[in-house]
This record gives sequence, structure tokens and C-alpha cells, in this order.
Amino acid sequence: MRIGLGQFDAVVGDLEGNAGRMREIYGQAREKGVELLLFPELGICGYPPEDLLLKKHFLEENRKTVEKLAVDCPDVTIMAGFADSYRGRTYNCAGILRGGRLTDVYRKCLLPNSGVFDEKRYFEPGKKNLLISLNGFKFAVTICQDIWDIDWLARFLKKAEPIDMVLNISASPFHLEKIETRKDVVGQCAAQFKCPACYCNLVGGQDELVFDGRSMFADAAGNIVAMAKGFEEDLLIADITMRDGVARIEPKEAPAMTHLDILDEMYKALVLGTRDYVKKNGFSKAILGLSGGIDSAVTAGLAVDALGAENVIAITMPSKFNIHDTISDAEKCAKNLGIEFITIPIGAVLEQFDDSLGQAHGWNSKGIAYENLQARIRGTLLMTLSNQWNALVLTTGNKSETAVGYSTLYGDTAGGFAVIKDVFKTMVYKLAHYINNIKGREIIPKSIIDRVPTAELRANQKDTDSLPDYDLLDEILKGYVEQDLSARQLIEGGLPKEDVNRVISMVDRNEYKRRQSPPGVKITPKAFGRDRRLPITNRYNHRSNSK
Amino acid sequence: MRIGLGQFDAVVGDLEGNAGRMREIYGQAREKGVELLLFPELGICGYPPEDLLLKKHFLEENRKTVEKLAVDCPDVTIMAGFADSYRGRTYNCAGILRGGRLTDVYRKCLLPNSGVFDEKRYFEPGKKNLLISLNGFKFAVTICQDIWDIDWLARFLKKAEPIDMVLNISASPFHLEKIETRKDVVGQCAAQFKCPACYCNLVGGQDELVFDGRSMFADAAGNIVAMAKGFEEDLLIADITMRDGVARIEPKEAPAMTHLDILDEMYKALVLGTRDYVKKNGFSKAILGLSGGIDSAVTAGLAVDALGAENVIAITMPSKFNIHDTISDAEKCAKNLGIEFITIPIGAVLEQFDDSLGQAHGWNSKGIAYENLQARIRGTLLMTLSNQWNALVLTTGNKSETAVGYSTLYGDTAGGFAVIKDVFKTMVYKLAHYINNIKGREIIPKSIIDRVPTAELRANQKDTDSLPDYDLLDEILKGYVEQDLSARQLIEGGLPKEDVNRVISMVDRNEYKRRQSPPGVKITPKAFGRDRRLPITNRYNHRSNSK
Repeated sequence: MRIGLGQFDAVVGDLEGNAGRMREIYGQAREKGVELLLFPELGICGYPPEDLLLKKHFLEENRKTVEKLAVDCPDVTIMAGFADSYRGRTYNCAGILRGGRLTDVYRKCLLPNSGVFDEKRYFEPGKKNLLISLNGFKFAVTICQDIWDIDWLARFLKKAEPIDMVLNISASPFHLEKIETRKDVVGQCAAQFKCPACYCNLVGGQDELVFDGRSMFADAAGNIVAMAKGFEEDLLIADITMRDGVARIEPKEAPAMTHLDILDEMYKALVLGTRDYVKKNGFSKAILGLSGGIDSAVTAGLAVDALGAENVIAITMPSKFNIHDTISDAEKCAKNLGIEFITIPIGAVLEQFDDSLGQAHGWNSKGIAYENLQARIRGTLLMTLSNQWNALVLTTGNKSETAVGYSTLYGDTAGGFAVIKDVFKTMVYKLAHYINNIKGREIIPKSIIDRVPTAELRANQKDTDSLPDYDLLDEILKGYVEQDLSARQLIEGGLPKEDVNRVISMVDRNEYKRRQSPPGVKITPKAFGRDRRLPITNRYNHRSNSK
Repeated sequence: MRIGLGQFDAVVGDLEGNAGRMREIYGQAREKGVELLLFPELGICGYPPEDLLLKKHFLEENRKTVEKLAVDCPDVTIMAGFADSYRGRTYNCAGILRGGRLTDVYRKCLLPNSGVFDEKRYFEPGKKNLLISLNGFKFAVTICQDIWDIDWLARFLKKAEPIDMVLNISASPFHLEKIETRKDVVGQCAAQFKCPACYCNLVGGQDELVFDGRSMFADAAGNIVAMAKGFEEDLLIADITMRDGVARIEPKEAPAMTHLDILDEMYKALVLGTRDYVKKNGFSKAILGLSGGIDSAVTAGLAVDALGAENVIAITMPSKFNIHDTISDAEKCAKNLGIEFITIPIGAVLEQFDDSLGQAHGWNSKGIAYENLQARIRGTLLMTLSNQWNALVLTTGNKSETAVGYSTLYGDTAGGFAVIKDVFKTMVYKLAHYINNIKGREIIPKSIIDRVPTAELRANQKDTDSLPDYDLLDEILKGYVEQDLSARQLIEGGLPKEDVNRVISMVDRNEYKRRQSPPGVKITPKAFGRDRRLPITNRYNHRSNSK
């Protein structure tokens, strides 16, 4: 018997569009002899639909769409994810579509509610398992989290054993190296029930999340025997056969399982997340400020792969504080990338602002306010051109800056999507080398990679005037932000007390800036955004722990 | 026996500060002969502490703080809310402090997880009830939501009956007229168990939430017999006595129960929310753009009550599109309020921008981009002065504008706190009259109230060029945003189809602007912010329902 995993890029809310894509994949699968076809969790409505789930008519349309899909796709048994209400409660469902009808509905039992997940806000947990018989095989139906607690699952399916195969549909958001955990989870599930398992994951970008696909088949011993492509749509097919009372799995036309290293993953996630955000929101073009620094250069490189060189416009906006080298580096980088490059000096506008602000008491044209003003003029220019050209502004701040608030609100944070928001500065350098490597030539000029980091908002400014070295900064941030460690724990772990306390206090103080910053691709286990929810008004003094 | 409800303004994260305030209230209560003193839900750490609860050291310090409070306050039995972990799980707790020790801990059972609440993200539900005996009385301990499902509570406490009094500590966020529901809930609880009940609520502003206090005592028949002050700290005291086997409640020194009408409530909530946001975040001064329109005039009026006239600075930033009347109205309004007033015309900066932008292809100095540019210059001026003076920028957008995106991102939305973000335009007019009424003179000039609404970003512009009349707009928005109705339902309810479809599409399209806007005080059952979580990338076509 032939099984297909139809991993596709669903758009949140686009019920008709998603069903249309599923019909196309059904057509391909049928031609290839597939008899059971899986689609990702909530594939009908996209993931996560958030408060759309509170609208009764949205749920009604979900059901109508899945029923219509059944009518349109009568020749293959389909397992399709959708949201449904039953007796006034809402469930995360897998519908079984057979012979033109929605014949069975399984309701997800384990609802994740931490990190980026809010499923308990919307869904009631299901209580009953669902087993379906097809061609003499007995399949157990599960959704995402259901297989992540193997002890619970073993109890839940105990009476149903023996099972010939566990089916799982998921919408599992990407972070670096999470695939290894997923492989373990799927393999462990197969080994637990001594039968093959399959896992159909979503692919595509949705606001700050990226889904990386890589759907899988595991054999009864728990080995992953086939894996679909990463970061793109795919139809992964395998045959299940019964031999000596044991179900065996045999991949068909499966792509070679290639291991992506951490930089491959990061690059592909950032490109897909950016492309989907821009395109799903109705834009085709993007603009960004190209300063001659490494962050904007890497962002431009990613944007070109996401949208095509013809759709990316770089603006450089020099002031008297920009040295000649950075301006020419920006131009060189744009040229290497083959993108349009426009220069708009900000000196005259800055002078005029300075003049107008002279009417306010205490105005200081040499202070921090004046430094931020330059960034805000640039933000205003970019947003104005964004309005004029209908092009989305990409911001260029990295995770290290975002964490400590080394940015100007409505200045360099102004824009629609923050491409490298979840990439630490130390990783931005690695990405720069990676881009030059995969392109086989110097895209990001070496002089940009080698320059000492500077915001160039005053003469001879260096990032290290305000921040520790990035190696140290990133180490502190990983502990504090990603692992929720206290100052004391970080200091006991060998990090310098003064830097730890300073950095923690900067992170806490700048929650308000992050709250007003654009979304960006989550690539780490804990990104800023829905993953990490801290109050702005917050007097908790983490530093007190270090006494 | 004497019971006190110590409703106070806790600051999130300020464990020592909150405990200090509780010690002060303990001192006052002891002097007044109080024998049992209640503090609000999570009063030790403030509400909601959000992801601070994921930090192990934060939980450890919660427990240490409550244990220290017990030592410091040995002479009165105290019920204090704090967060605690037990066997690796986190609970929302009520600690009972007696004779210098934390003697008992109750763990909240019902965890709200809708609207603004995320308690299932953090807490495990408790399972066991807690009854405490004191002076011959038997008290049942509950936390907030526990009394909102009376059938559940009746089952939960069935074996414990008879009970002499139900104690409840809460952190119940304000919205208009919610007090009536709360009175019903507390009354119904008392009536169910045929005994008095008391309810100690939090007071104060925390980011977008305001807690309004109004702690209560109900008698055994379910009547509310005493209520603490609204929107300020208070210590509400009553005596409980046993007569004929029935516990009776008798208020002491209780303030007269005054009914606040909807405008009183709104006004007080906005003032308290603004004051607490500004002050708890370390500011004393605020600045705002005063345009001569009604939104900024009302915002200025609220700011003056929140912070004092000496701490509010108004900036007017006229362009050639502002008619003389609006500029002089702005000045008049500032004068009426007694606040500093500074004029910074934007014409010269605008011209310089226009000139610089001429270097970009396709620049149109008459289009929407040019209109938005004016707003962004104003936003930049305000933020620059905010940096220079260390004064928080208050934005002036109302809920109607915020809903349909009738604003410029990084322009008029630029600032730290959006005072009237949850106030519909039609209510802004009522607030203007209200302010003039309570001050007994014309604060908001009549000419401002009477002027046809306009953004003045081009000549002769009126809001109705782009939007329906505000009466109609607000009606559509209430249905769509607050009640999650579909286009079809709104149209069937008698609203004009074309306007409904247009407004819904504007609301959906502008999610990205709201995501980057500052927080503001929630006053309606559904505010923009954590209350309403919709994807930015969202192709759900609500309008299709109207076919």
C-alpha cells in the first residue's frame, strides 16, 4: 500500500487557496498510485490561525472547506488538518476523507502552550483515539504534540495495539538543529509500537515562524528511512507491506537524505521566512538601508536570494560621520549583488532639523538625541520610499543589538520585517562568509567583514564604546535570554560580573523597543517575540542575585 | 472578628517594594484591630508577571519574600498572593501567614487562559481546597477565577460545608461596567454557600491593563455590603460575627458605595493607567503633539490629571496645511490646561526632505507618501525631544483610527504610551465634554469639539474622505472587533454592505501597524493588544461571507 506525505506551504486564513493546493497535490499523488495521503496539521487554515479561531464563521468555513475537499478528491484516502467546533468547543482536528466524504475526525489531545504556542487559548483537548483500517492495515491517527510524550501515547494507544503504522501530521516550527529532536521523536514513536511511523510537517513562513518541512518515514525499529526536502514543498512517498506479521516501509523516489549543517539551516530558514513574509503580504519588492556595515550587507544578501536581485533596492544615506570607506563598501556590495543602489545624503535634512529644534529649550546638537535623530531621518526616508514604491522595508538589526536595545526606535528599527533579528552578531559574521562561499565569490566585501563594528552616529564611534565585545556579549545573552539564567548563575559560570550586570540591565530596560519592532524569523530555541513575553513595566532586579 | 482587605498598587517584579507596601498596610491594619488581612492575587510579584515566571530564581525569591513577610508581620493572619514552584511545577498561590510563619499554601485551581490571560502558559492547576480556622470561624480560601464558575466551586467545596466565609484574592483587570459582573459573582458565591464572602482586588496600571480595586464584602444573602475605593489604594474593613449559627458581616469605616457611571470609570481608568505607566517606568514628564484636534486635546487633559500640569509639555508642529484656527485652538487648550506650549513648524524640514527625495525615481510630492512624511517628521521631532528631555511621548490615536489604520506608522503612532488607544472616537467627544464638566469650565475649547475631524495632511482634507462617519464606523468596529461578528452578520443586522466590507478590509490590512504601536489602557471587553491576537500574514477574506 502506498502512502504520500504532502508537505506544502499553507497560508494562514486562505481556506480556498490551501484547499486548492491540496487538490493539486492530490492529483499528483493519485497519478503516482498513492492510496493514503497526509497533509500537515491545520493545513486547511494554515498555522497558527490565532484569534481567527474565535470566529464562529471561520470554523464553519473550515468544515465546509474540508467537506468540499473530500468531494473533490474521492480516489485517495486523505488525512487533512483543520479546525472544527463540536458542541460549542473548538478542536484541532485531523479529518479522514474517503470516497468523497469526511468519514472520521480525530481531535488532538496534547495541546502545546509554551514558547510560541498558545493552543490552550483556543482548543479543548480531544479524549478519544482514532484507528483507521485501510487495505488490511490498521493506522493510528495522531497530531503533532501527541507523539512528543511517548509515555502518554503508549497509555493512550495501549488497548489499540497491535498497530501497523502511526500517522502524524504536524506544524512544527523551525529552530536550529531541532530536526535532530524530531527524528528522535518519530523514531521513538515507531520503536514504541514496533511499527513504522510517518510524520507530515508544514513548510513555509508565517510571520515570525518558519516551518521547515522535512517530513519523514521511520521503520519499525525507529530508523528514519526517508525524509522530504527541507524548506520547500515536497511529496514524499513510501510503500508499506506486511511481512511475517510485521509492517515494513519502503521509500519510493525519496530524495537522498542530506544533512544540513547549522549555517545551511539558518540561511535557508532566513531566506524562506523573508520570501514568504514579503510575498504572502502582497509585496514583491523590498528596500533596505545599506550602510557599509556587515548587518545590512548580510540582510541584502538574504533578500536577494529571497526575492531576486531585481526586487531589492538599497539606499545608502550617508552623513558627515560616515567615513568614505563605508560608503564605497556599500556601493561595492550592491554591485556584487546586482541590486539597484541609490544615495541620499542626510546632511541637509539633519541641519534643518537641528535648526528647528533650536527653538526647544535645552537642545543639544551633540548628544544622544542628536545621534538618534540621524537614525530616525534614515528610517523616515526608507518608510517614505516604501510608501512611494510599495516596497517593504527590511530592517537590519541582529539579535545582539535587539537584546540590548542598541538601536533607535523608529530609526533603524523602522520597517516591515527584521530579517536577522534572531541571529547573534557572532553568527552574522559566519553568515557573511557562508554567503561568499556558496556564491563562490566575494559578495560581501572583505573590507566590510573586517571593519570594526560602528554605528557611525558620531565621529570615531565604535560599538565597543557602549557594549562588551560581541563574543562576550553573545555568551551572556545566550545564558540570560535563551536559558533564563540569573546573573549569579552566569557569574558563577565564569562570566565577568560587571559586564553581566550591565548587559542584563540593558536587556530589561529595552523591552519597550522590542515591543514596537517588526517581526523577524525565529531561528533559535528562544526568539524575541511571542516566544518570550516579558512585561515592559518590570522592576525585577535580576542583578540582586549577584550579591 | 475583624477582616481587612488591603487593596494596593503592586509593581510587577518589585518583590521587595511590594512586600514593603504590604508591611505598611499590615501596620495600619493591626492598629485598627484587624485579625485577618487579605492582599491581592500575586501581590508579592505583581500581576501579570508573564515570563518572569519561567525563571527559577524569580520563583525562589517569591517564596523567600513571602516567608520574610511572615516574619515581619506576626500579629495578624495574612493571606498573600505569590508565585511558587513545587516539585518542578509552578502554581499561582495564596500563602497563609500566621505567627511569623508561612503555615499553609492554597494553589489556584481555575486558570484563565483567554482574552488578556495566559495562566496556562505558566501555572499548573491546584487540586486541593484549603480551609483555615481562625477564632472559631471556618474560612474557605480561593483565588480569582475559582469563584467565577460557581457550579465547579460548589462541587469543589461540597465536603467542606458548612463554611463561615469565602475568602477570595483577585487581580481582575478593568473594563467598562465589569464591576457589575464582579458584584454578581461575589454575591452569587456568598449566596451559594449561605455565608459572607470577601473579595480583595488589585489596583493600579500595568502596561495595557488597569486594575480598579473596588474590593468587596458580601453578606450571606449575596448582597454587596461594602466596597473599597475605585482606582486607588484602600483598606476595607468589616467584622464577622456568629449569630444563630449564621455568620454575619458588618462593615467598619467603609466609604459610601458610590456608583461610577461609564464616563467616570473611563476617565479614572485612563488617568490611573497613564500615571502608573509613566511613573513605574521611571519617567515623571510627558510630551505630546497638540494639533488642535480633539484626540490630542483629550489626551492632554488626561495627562494633566495623571501627571500634573507642570509635567506635561505640548508641542504643536504646524505645516502649510494647518489652518490658523487649529493652531490657535491648540494654544488655547494648552493655556486652559496650564501646560508648557512650544511651536515648531515643520515646513522647512519638509521642504528639505522633499528636495532630498527628489533624487529617488518616481518621487511624488503630492501623494500619500508625502502626507505620511509630515506625520513622520512630527514623530521624529517628538521622539528627539523625548530623548533630550527624558520625557515619555504620549500618542493620541483613538480606537477607531487604530482599528482601521488611519494613522502613520512611526508618525503619529510614535511614542511610549497610547492613552486613548481603546477609546472609540464617538466616546472621545463624550470624554471632552466630561472633562469640561468636571473641571467646571472650558478646558477643551468648544471650537475643537465642533470642528469637522481632519488629519490636515493635505489641503481641505476631512476624515470622511477616507472613512465612514464615526457613528457608523464605531458601530461596525464594535461588531467586528469586539464581538467577532462576520460581515454577513453585520449586514444582516442592518449595516450598509459597502461600508462593512471596506472597514473590515481596513482592519485586517492594518494588523502590522498595531503590532508596532505602543501599549495603551484597555477599557473595553476587547482591546487591541494581548486581548486580540491576529496574524499579520492573514488571507482570510471575511468579506466572502457577505456573498
